[in-house]
Amino acid sequence: MKHEKLILVTNDDGVKAKGLKSLIETVRELGRVVVVAPEESQSGMSHAITMKYPLRIRTVKKEKGLEIYGCSGTPVDCVKLALHQLLERKPDMLVSGINHGSNASVSVVYSGTMAAAIEGGINKVPSIGFSLLDYSADADFKTAGIYVRRIMEKVFMNGIEKGICLNVNIPVGKEDELKGIKICRQTDGYWQEEFDKRIDPDKQEYYWLTGYFNNSEPLADDTDEWALQNKFVSVVPIQIDFTSHSRMEELKKWKF
Amino acid sequence: MKHEKLILVTNDDGVKAKGLKSLIETVRELGRVVVVAPEESQSGMSHAITMKYPLRIRTVKKEKGLEIYGCSGTPVDCVKLALHQLLERKPDMLVSGINHGSNASVSVVYSGTMAAAIEGGINKVPSIGFSLLDYSADADFKTAGIYVRRIMEKVFMNGIEKGICLNVNIPVGKEDELKGIKICRQTDGYWQEEFDKRIDPDKQEYYWLTGYFNNSEPLADDTDEWALQNKFVSVVPIQIDFTSHSRMEELKKWKF
Repeated sequence: MKHEKLILVTNDDGVKAKGLKSLIETVRELGRVVVVAPEESQSGMSHAITMKYPLRIRTVKKEKGLEIYGCSGTPVDCVKLALHQLLERKPDMLVSGINHGSNASVSVVYSGTMAAAIEGGINKVPSIGFSLLDYSADADFKTAGIYVRRIMEKVFMNGIEKGICLNVNIPVGKEDELKGIKICRQTDGYWQEEFDKRIDPDKQEYYWLTGYFNNSEPLADDTDEWALQNKFVSVVPIQIDFTSHSRMEELKKWKF
Repeated sequence: MKHEKLILVTNDDGVKAKGLKSLIETVRELGRVVVVAPEESQSGMSHAITMKYPLRIRTVKKEKGLEIYGCSGTPVDCVKLALHQLLERKPDMLVSGINHGSNASVSVVYSGTMAAAIEGGINKVPSIGFSLLDYSADADFKTAGIYVRRIMEKVFMNGIEKGICLNVNIPVGKEDELKGIKICRQTDGYWQEEFDKRIDPDKQEYYWLTGYFNNSEPLADDTDEWALQNKFVSVVPIQIDFTSHSRMEELKKWKF
């Protein structure tokens, strides 16, 4: 008997997001699907975990081959609850997304979508985060779905080496407008913050976080930002070990 | 005229934490100090940023050479507000901590203390996160302070190469009990979650996140967990670029 694949799905835009629905449709064809996603949007929550409050799980749907749960916590809480509480065995793959908006370059650090994939990687589950370069709630995920499936099939075929997960970003466009898949490195960049300072009715100051992304380097053709600007789907292998092994030798010369 | 150093201080245990007070005492001897720290504890908040709520800043203290601000947001919000709103120039160093409890091994991923240091690194500020292996609110930071100062002086002397920040963990002990400083890599490990499932007065289930740290590898003497168990202060260079450059070539062979 063929072993049925168990696929864990999550995101950071919340259980009602269109990007999650698109991802579920795509992955249902590939195996048994369990979704554990935040009840509310958790964009920008990165790898946060909930320590001060208890977590709650709500069953949204339970049918043959598909279970959907809403969780009161962060994307990483969702992954932890799924792996250590809800699932009877380790899933064959974790997919996170499809995020509404880019998680290329340094955005990987702030992203709840990618934190969920990294958490999967920490737990030795082959994990991929998918993002579409369209922030709008009604974004069109049709072409993205084609690439999601193609990349998942490759990962099922080849496996993901221990210690990494994949950060996949997908440009907007019809199928014939995208130029294929490119393996990239994370562009060196940062968010230029411009706090919007306002005065509340009680005459107190408050700030809204706003900003825009800046490259810190000219866009070489091995960077994810270059790939996306040139209509390629970017795939960046993200390492779970944050150590800069190359700098360890440098630091040893400091003679503390 | 000697250039006075400008040092930005933050943490994730909050503006009232003893570890922060200890860090401030130590760094005051080294230059002008500006502290922007969360009003409340933000442990486990990782690199989360506040997007749905406005941020507020409260002046806690303003005297010659020392300003302390409390911020309603996360540790990374504190760093962003400091760098882009409060400070008139880029600081010469960012130090985060001293955290109450270890941020060794995979805990770097969940840590607000280390996220603040990584955010400093993204903004090209030499940045260090300090943690003491004692979770208690009244931990003794005396020995830790000696190492904080020694490491900061080394960093002022040598500079930190672009693209990294330092994760420093300090064992508990008197000065003559610690064996010095060791440059390490992050131990391969994970948190084994054991959710504590309870029933509330309304007969609904809820879960508390609990767990314990597990190594995924035997403790080699180049790992931070080995160093700490053997009473060394561990220094791990953390890379801001999350790309696994070594795996890029592997993935290119997949021929998407």
